[in-house]
Amino acid sequence: MAGNSFGKLFNLTTFGESHGEAIGGIIDGCPAGLEIDLEAVQLEMQRRKPGQSKIVTQRKEEDDVTFLSGIFEGKTTGTPIGFVIENTNQKSKDYSHIKDIYRPSHADYTFDQKYGHRDYRGGGRSSARETAVRVAAGAIAKQLISNIKINAFVSSVGEIFIDKPYQDLDFSKIESNIIRCPDESSAAKMIAKVEEIKKAGDTIGGTITCVLQNVPVGLGEPVFDKLHAELGKAMLSINAVKGFEYGGGFCSAKMQGSEHNDLFNEDGSTKSNLSGGIQGGISNGMDIYFRVAFKPVATIIQKQEALDNQGNIVEMQGKGRHDPCVVPRAVPIVEAMAALVIADYWLQNKLSTL
Amino acid sequence: MAGNSFGKLFNLTTFGESHGEAIGGIIDGCPAGLEIDLEAVQLEMQRRKPGQSKIVTQRKEEDDVTFLSGIFEGKTTGTPIGFVIENTNQKSKDYSHIKDIYRPSHADYTFDQKYGHRDYRGGGRSSARETAVRVAAGAIAKQLISNIKINAFVSSVGEIFIDKPYQDLDFSKIESNIIRCPDESSAAKMIAKVEEIKKAGDTIGGTITCVLQNVPVGLGEPVFDKLHAELGKAMLSINAVKGFEYGGGFCSAKMQGSEHNDLFNEDGSTKSNLSGGIQGGISNGMDIYFRVAFKPVATIIQKQEALDNQGNIVEMQGKGRHDPCVVPRAVPIVEAMAALVIADYWLQNKLSTL
Amino acid sequence: MAGNSFGKLFNLTTFGESHGEAIGGIIDGCPAGLEIDLEAVQLEMQRRKPGQSKIVTQRKEEDDVTFLSGIFEGKTTGTPIGFVIENTNQKSKDYSHIKDIYRPSHADYTFDQKYGHRDYRGGGRSSARETAVRVAAGAIAKQLISNIKINAFVSSVGEIFIDKPYQDLDFSKIESNIIRCPDESSAAKMIAKVEEIKKAGDTIGGTITCVLQNVPVGLGEPVFDKLHAELGKAMLSINAVKGFEYGGGFCSAKMQGSEHNDLFNEDGSTKSNLSGGIQGGISNGMDIYFRVAFKPVATIIQKQEALDNQGNIVEMQGKGRHDPCVVPRAVPIVEAMAALVIADYWLQNKLSTL
Amino acid sequence: MAGNSFGKLFNLTTFGESHGEAIGGIIDGCPAGLEIDLEAVQLEMQRRKPGQSKIVTQRKEEDDVTFLSGIFEGKTTGTPIGFVIENTNQKSKDYSHIKDIYRPSHADYTFDQKYGHRDYRGGGRSSARETAVRVAAGAIAKQLISNIKINAFVSSVGEIFIDKPYQDLDFSKIESNIIRCPDESSAAKMIAKVEEIKKAGDTIGGTITCVLQNVPVGLGEPVFDKLHAELGKAMLSINAVKGFEYGGGFCSAKMQGSEHNDLFNEDGSTKSNLSGGIQGGISNGMDIYFRVAFKPVATIIQKQEALDNQGNIVEMQGKGRHDPCVVPRAVPIVEAMAALVIADYWLQNKLSTL
Repeated sequence: MAGNSFGKLFNLTTFGESHGEAIGGIIDGCPAGLEIDLEAVQLEMQRRKPGQSKIVTQRKEEDDVTFLSGIFEGKTTGTPIGFVIENTNQKSKDYSHIKDIYRPSHADYTFDQKYGHRDYRGGGRSSARETAVRVAAGAIAKQLISNIKINAFVSSVGEIFIDKPYQDLDFSKIESNIIRCPDESSAAKMIAKVEEIKKAGDTIGGTITCVLQNVPVGLGEPVFDKLHAELGKAMLSINAVKGFEYGGGFCSAKMQGSEHNDLFNEDGSTKSNLSGGIQGGISNGMDIYFRVAFKPVATIIQKQEALDNQGNIVEMQGKGRHDPCVVPRAVPIVEAMAALVIADYWLQNKLSTL
Repeated sequence: MAGNSFGKLFNLTTFGESHGEAIGGIIDGCPAGLEIDLEAVQLEMQRRKPGQSKIVTQRKEEDDVTFLSGIFEGKTTGTPIGFVIENTNQKSKDYSHIKDIYRPSHADYTFDQKYGHRDYRGGGRSSARETAVRVAAGAIAKQLISNIKINAFVSSVGEIFIDKPYQDLDFSKIESNIIRCPDESSAAKMIAKVEEIKKAGDTIGGTITCVLQNVPVGLGEPVFDKLHAELGKAMLSINAVKGFEYGGGFCSAKMQGSEHNDLFNEDGSTKSNLSGGIQGGISNGMDIYFRVAFKPVATIIQKQEALDNQGNIVEMQGKGRHDPCVVPRAVPIVEAMAALVIADYWLQNKLSTL
Repeated sequence: MAGNSFGKLFNLTTFGESHGEAIGGIIDGCPAGLEIDLEAVQLEMQRRKPGQSKIVTQRKEEDDVTFLSGIFEGKTTGTPIGFVIENTNQKSKDYSHIKDIYRPSHADYTFDQKYGHRDYRGGGRSSARETAVRVAAGAIAKQLISNIKINAFVSSVGEIFIDKPYQDLDFSKIESNIIRCPDESSAAKMIAKVEEIKKAGDTIGGTITCVLQNVPVGLGEPVFDKLHAELGKAMLSINAVKGFEYGGGFCSAKMQGSEHNDLFNEDGSTKSNLSGGIQGGISNGMDIYFRVAFKPVATIIQKQEALDNQGNIVEMQGKGRHDPCVVPRAVPIVEAMAALVIADYWLQNKLSTL
Repeated sequence: MAGNSFGKLFNLTTFGESHGEAIGGIIDGCPAGLEIDLEAVQLEMQRRKPGQSKIVTQRKEEDDVTFLSGIFEGKTTGTPIGFVIENTNQKSKDYSHIKDIYRPSHADYTFDQKYGHRDYRGGGRSSARETAVRVAAGAIAKQLISNIKINAFVSSVGEIFIDKPYQDLDFSKIESNIIRCPDESSAAKMIAKVEEIKKAGDTIGGTITCVLQNVPVGLGEPVFDKLHAELGKAMLSINAVKGFEYGGGFCSAKMQGSEHNDLFNEDGSTKSNLSGGIQGGISNGMDIYFRVAFKPVATIIQKQEALDNQGNIVEMQGKGRHDPCVVPRAVPIVEAMAALVIADYWLQNKLSTL
């Protein structure tokens, strides 16, 4: 397998399966001299960890990050930052019964076809447990670009959408409810919906909106590495993501140039921002905002047909402790991936001119 | 500027501004022994070139590709394939009048802020002329993965959408009309719409759908380099793209797991395909399909406010020969980028197992 | 700091300081299905570890490798192989007295100038302790390319050289003496020399020769990534290395073409092998051999002038448990780096042709 | 073929065979705003071009570089710099007689084995003609790091060595003779030797020494990308190179620590410089110097045995216009590769600290 690294200059490489001894990663390229707030890292881990509320999986996992290198006397040294997160909750279980079964819309079948030999315990490398490492690394990235404000929040669950522009929302309320939606009335409806879905043993999709504020002008490498292209890849690399749009997004495709163009103010800012803070792949100093679509979690607590590795259709009954809706726990993951992209492009931009 | 390379193993590096002497690229990593059909390359160039119909820009540019290396006696040698495309149409014009003006929703302002010094003639490096190189390289990629069928088509212009699933379309009709929409009645409406928009000196957005058929199981690198993540980045790197979704896309976010899961047939294929041919970032052998949103072209033939580099709002009148709607010419670009991704991942997958 | 990754397809990323909690690494790109012999890995660790004989440092460190991912039921899964090696011996010491002192010919001064903030305990990231991770990863690489025989040995210590071509040596004797020289009479002299040097509190340089046998024809990417160029970089990246030559090496520079050319046998092998098994950057199936020069260890147990960070020359007295001569412990490191290069190029070569 | 790119941030990708239409390259990552002296580029090309004196190949090739992008109004724009060099001298020749013959110590056999299909005309991609592109790119790199003085010179031809330390040489005399040796009496002997060898239809090896002065402290990425490791790879990637040593080099391997250590002066400079200006992989501000060994050119104008592709030993008679000794023309190539490394590491070092 390749592709376990992300970022050119602020580079994260990760390892780990859901049921191995530990997961972890190495950040290479973080400049020396950055003061690291380890509690802030742990706080991000809390936001992602299972068992944090009644509407997420009830698995218990502490997700404590142990940093092994690269930080000395409270500051980065410029050397690689290695860290591990133990898998404390998964050691005893017996997974041999699903060894030969491919669950629908999971990666079981494709992993087996691709690699021949796989760690079948709980999803292995394809488990969303892998994203814990991203959150840890993203928390370091956030500290590198601490002037930039990154706020992600749940903007829809199923058919329930926030019906306001993000400018009308108070981001300080995102963490005030368990669905992570800053619009309180929408939040209440979303939570009720997830509880209903959970009772039915079903799951439901949703979207996350992310807003980056105070981004300096000039981040982004035109052509293949446009800023929004890398943000898009970052988001699409998160488990269960099916779509990405920024600025006007899919709505832009319905519009005319005369209404879509963002006219300038004298200071270089723009009156409207359908560009989503990025023009020609480069940040223009306006808010960057984008929306990410998550499908419903594939594991449902209902009877379902599956395939075994002998080519038989078999009935299986989903069980265990799974998320009925992935979006509340995905909020810190979206932020982490955004932070990794911005940190990387912030470093890249240091080299644009003499 | 970094980021002028695309692909890990089938790697394309490009250069060139819209008004320099030539644009071009180098493909590094194409295996030796591939028979190259140069006419097929040129055919793709024709599909992208300006002046091909009444609804696209009337600029004339032949876009002949000259291969300088890497192909010998009709076959690739394994050495890098260097090629150039002359800029024949742009030599004489005087662009000094726009030297100091930032057009709205173009990359003028961001380039100037980022680099300080830019080639202001006709968009320079940010011009969509750059995509001609992608089409040439994509045409080579297509020959490497010739078993895989890649069909992109215009699925909407403004509010006019094809209202059928792609399975009901006849892809052989894509090239039968100038908008590149295989549904004839929709095509007629789209063409009429673009003509109307053009007359008004305005522009309009649209979407392109792309379908990849006969993709082998196993392409894609889980975690950061999921197949759809790289396809998404590839598409988002094309000028004017604002969004990407694959499989169920943004609709998946409204669905429940019990309706969204793709149940297996005994041969490993699936009854439905909301997964869009990719599970856990790896192709599962079903059709891969995705949709790409394009904003309306920023250059409109109307009076508009712009900013000059002294901070003054100035009125400008768009003129020249521009596309009223980018999607018909973007069809071969979408296919080219898809081919580059698939060729790269096809090579990567050769290394998955012993 | 960048540059903590090695290899394009068989890719190792490492972390860790000599006095942190642990060092470790991630191998990304090892194909699935490779049976892993963990004892063989540990055996390589023994060959490198401190305290193994009277002529190396008397520090005690077990250097047990713990694999955390990527290996399941005895075989690689294709997912990244994460591993850690605890630093057991270094926890209690007080290094504050050398915090402000730059030892001559160490990396203290350059690290401080470059990064501003460094882990000054025992060399930190610049310590040769880092090579333990290379040996662990190299041991996995060796198993991937198990048909290829890799033998490194000490070919000189100070002025004492083996005066025979490698073809006259019995590689099975390399491990039979503590200096790792297969020529017994030379070995005895070398050991005596190192003991004498050690008694004097001094250190001494040496060379290692490495021979790769049974390498298939075709490994190596011409132009920048010639096989010997990457081998050279790999060796020069090992602590204390000052030079690299392969085949005829520096002697070739004194010769004439008529005597230097390797004439062919009918089977494509060559009568002589001054090419060192590589022609045009590509292996030709003959033995690959090269020689690596190591300087004397900079830490000597004598009084010496050093610089403090206030610009004062101060006298320091080297103490502690250091290697009087680095070459015996560097033998497995040279082999490990050679294995990493060959494994990587073996994978790369799978993509040369259709 | 992979490996046609060099450098992480100041990145050169090249293409071209000796007998194709043109060779060329793309520099990606050169910062915007650098004034480019095109004459200085051409001057470097003159130093490398064939036919420049009686002791080099008498082929005539003008080697004019045409820049196609990335430079506007005399300065870099930050966009990729594409350039081509036409192959003017090689079009008419008939090479079909060597199509099936593998010349000894050339890359004919290994290319054919690796790729199956090769451009057999005059060495194709393995020809040293490829280095013309390196010289052009290196000339741009030199302008980026113009404060750093890079001087390479011929330090030996066969057994004739300059018997002085480089500090006693006047680098301004390097270009004063056709062998590019700043020591006039050595130069005379070397020239006489090459003329004698040429008359005999033979070839001879030699070494080049390169000195980098005024290098700032802090260039180099410890661990795998040590500054000297990348310099070593750069040099070993040049055709015909067999060895690389820096600072004390292979002599260091014979020395004791007490004599080898470079003691500090109060300003951080060192009294001696056996470290060769690099400690722990990072430049320390002292002169960086290294030596590169070149084998004798494989093409000799004598009868010699070769192998055909049917496995027959055949007699061949070398003919044509070849270099009797490669080192005078390799001097600018060594400098160019050194400049590419230093430019790249200079950019990398901008990211070491906040």
